[in-house]
Amino acid sequence: MHTLSEYQGIIEQRLKEIAYPQEPSGLYEPIRYILDGGGKRIRPVLTLAACEALGGAADDALNQAVGIEMFHNFTLLHDDVMDRADMRRGRPTVHIRWDERTAILSGDAMLTMSAAIMSRGCSDAQLPAVMGLYRRTAMEIYEGQQYDMDFESRPDVSVDDYLDMIRLKTAVLLGCACALGVIMAGGDRAQADAMYAYGERLGLAFQLRDDYLDTYGDPIFFGKEIGGDILNDKKTWLLITGLTEDTSGVIADEISRPSEPDVKIERVRKVYDSLGLPVRCQQLIDTYVDAAVAQLDKVSMTPAARKFFVGLAEKTRSRSH
Amino acid sequence: MHTLSEYQGIIEQRLKEIAYPQEPSGLYEPIRYILDGGGKRIRPVLTLAACEALGGAADDALNQAVGIEMFHNFTLLHDDVMDRADMRRGRPTVHIRWDERTAILSGDAMLTMSAAIMSRGCSDAQLPAVMGLYRRTAMEIYEGQQYDMDFESRPDVSVDDYLDMIRLKTAVLLGCACALGVIMAGGDRAQADAMYAYGERLGLAFQLRDDYLDTYGDPIFFGKEIGGDILNDKKTWLLITGLTEDTSGVIADEISRPSEPDVKIERVRKVYDSLGLPVRCQQLIDTYVDAAVAQLDKVSMTPAARKFFVGLAEKTRSRSH
Repeated sequence: MHTLSEYQGIIEQRLKEIAYPQEPSGLYEPIRYILDGGGKRIRPVLTLAACEALGGAADDALNQAVGIEMFHNFTLLHDDVMDRADMRRGRPTVHIRWDERTAILSGDAMLTMSAAIMSRGCSDAQLPAVMGLYRRTAMEIYEGQQYDMDFESRPDVSVDDYLDMIRLKTAVLLGCACALGVIMAGGDRAQADAMYAYGERLGLAFQLRDDYLDTYGDPIFFGKEIGGDILNDKKTWLLITGLTEDTSGVIADEISRPSEPDVKIERVRKVYDSLGLPVRCQQLIDTYVDAAVAQLDKVSMTPAARKFFVGLAEKTRSRSH
Repeated sequence: MHTLSEYQGIIEQRLKEIAYPQEPSGLYEPIRYILDGGGKRIRPVLTLAACEALGGAADDALNQAVGIEMFHNFTLLHDDVMDRADMRRGRPTVHIRWDERTAILSGDAMLTMSAAIMSRGCSDAQLPAVMGLYRRTAMEIYEGQQYDMDFESRPDVSVDDYLDMIRLKTAVLLGCACALGVIMAGGDRAQADAMYAYGERLGLAFQLRDDYLDTYGDPIFFGKEIGGDILNDKKTWLLITGLTEDTSGVIADEISRPSEPDVKIERVRKVYDSLGLPVRCQQLIDTYVDAAVAQLDKVSMTPAARKFFVGLAEKTRSRSH
């Protein structure tokens, strides 16, 4: 096993080596730009680590790791257009730096490229498993994004609806990343399923912690303004639960007739606090982290490998950025 | 061999049978909508016909035919967003009927679905050839769309630039459609290459005839207003050639200071006429049609199959819609 930063280094290196055609630069420059933007590379790290944990070499799954990172960045590119997001990782998004049609077209190219890279280095037996999982996951992610957009105008979103949406939009890709590593290591179906379940639960914890930090994080570590979700009435676990349990009517009031931004954040957060939501949200995160770790018992791996995956889960529990 | 309308019927039937998930309907309804919109289905027809011409059954290439039609409609969906086109085949485009982010996301789903369908029914030997050709073609089409967008603001577009752009944006997909049929019939590389070349030249003739009809067509048959390209200063073969050869300065004048729409169309067309452009454009179309037909000599097929492909080429030469 390698360390987290070693895996990240392998991915960064390989991403840098991708040889794009020179022309048309309007198509390929934005792809290089978004892939150069950094990020934690958590998905490809999971693929490489899962492959090594199951007895393969990191190299055996390098194409699949890069393919999944390419796919992930394609979703960010198109989501930023759909969500009209201007900034990503401290830089202007592609549709701001270039324009919207460039963002659409370069994203399309990334989607096709991700599938091509994903299929490389597979044996005849691995290929249908890899591509089947990849495509099924892609469809689930589109469904998750659609639900996320639908929720904006739906008044009746339940906590279960929300959890299923983030499972589709975010968690399944982490599950897929893990399972791809198992497949490329030559692991069996049960091992792939267990590592998929690990990644999926990790993904749920990851997204819930993200929501938590958006309201309760320290802006110095979090890297963006706190309270964005509250200002946008974003239907997260906090808002859905808060709205259901808030007998004071403050939250509903702030949604229909918002106060000044700072006041709105303060008033809504006070209701969340009074309902004990930060503690309960963290408990839910803990539940998913524990469930992720429990999946590791189903897979035979070295203590070092187990330590790596437990460590990643523990980090997700308490991360501040 | 079947007739053109029989092949079209097979495709329409299969497209209708695609089972989409019920939910989220916002993702899947637009896909059904655009695929229900009709069109000539020329690309999947080429795939089925090429497969039969090479001794296969139409069914052997049905997945690849449907996959290529799904891909083609994905490009139309995203191109309509990029080009801000409001109507397609007499109906509102998806981003008008729904909204822009729906069009982006449903298009993404169609791209992933097209690859999944494309890979079905392939032997282990056929799969890399099919998917390699499909992905290479997809990348070329993105490049063609990028060049098309770049050309809008480039003052120095040559006729060769234009022909290469329409080759990428339009013609290679017809070549790909033909070659897929050959591969699925078990034909060899030389046959696939020859049928690809047939389709590519057919595609060039097809697009040039489209440009020709936009300026010289009969609106009753053409199905849309005549003169749109002139009004939009669209850099087609006619405009690029006209601008180069026009010593009167009328075209340059109409670009920088356009007259009323009807007057602009009339004035530009008069210059085209004086330069003999309609005749020369048709000669170029004829050259590509003849070159397409010549490719058929390299492939051993029944007289009926040859007649089918020659017939399609002849139709392209003189079509009025």
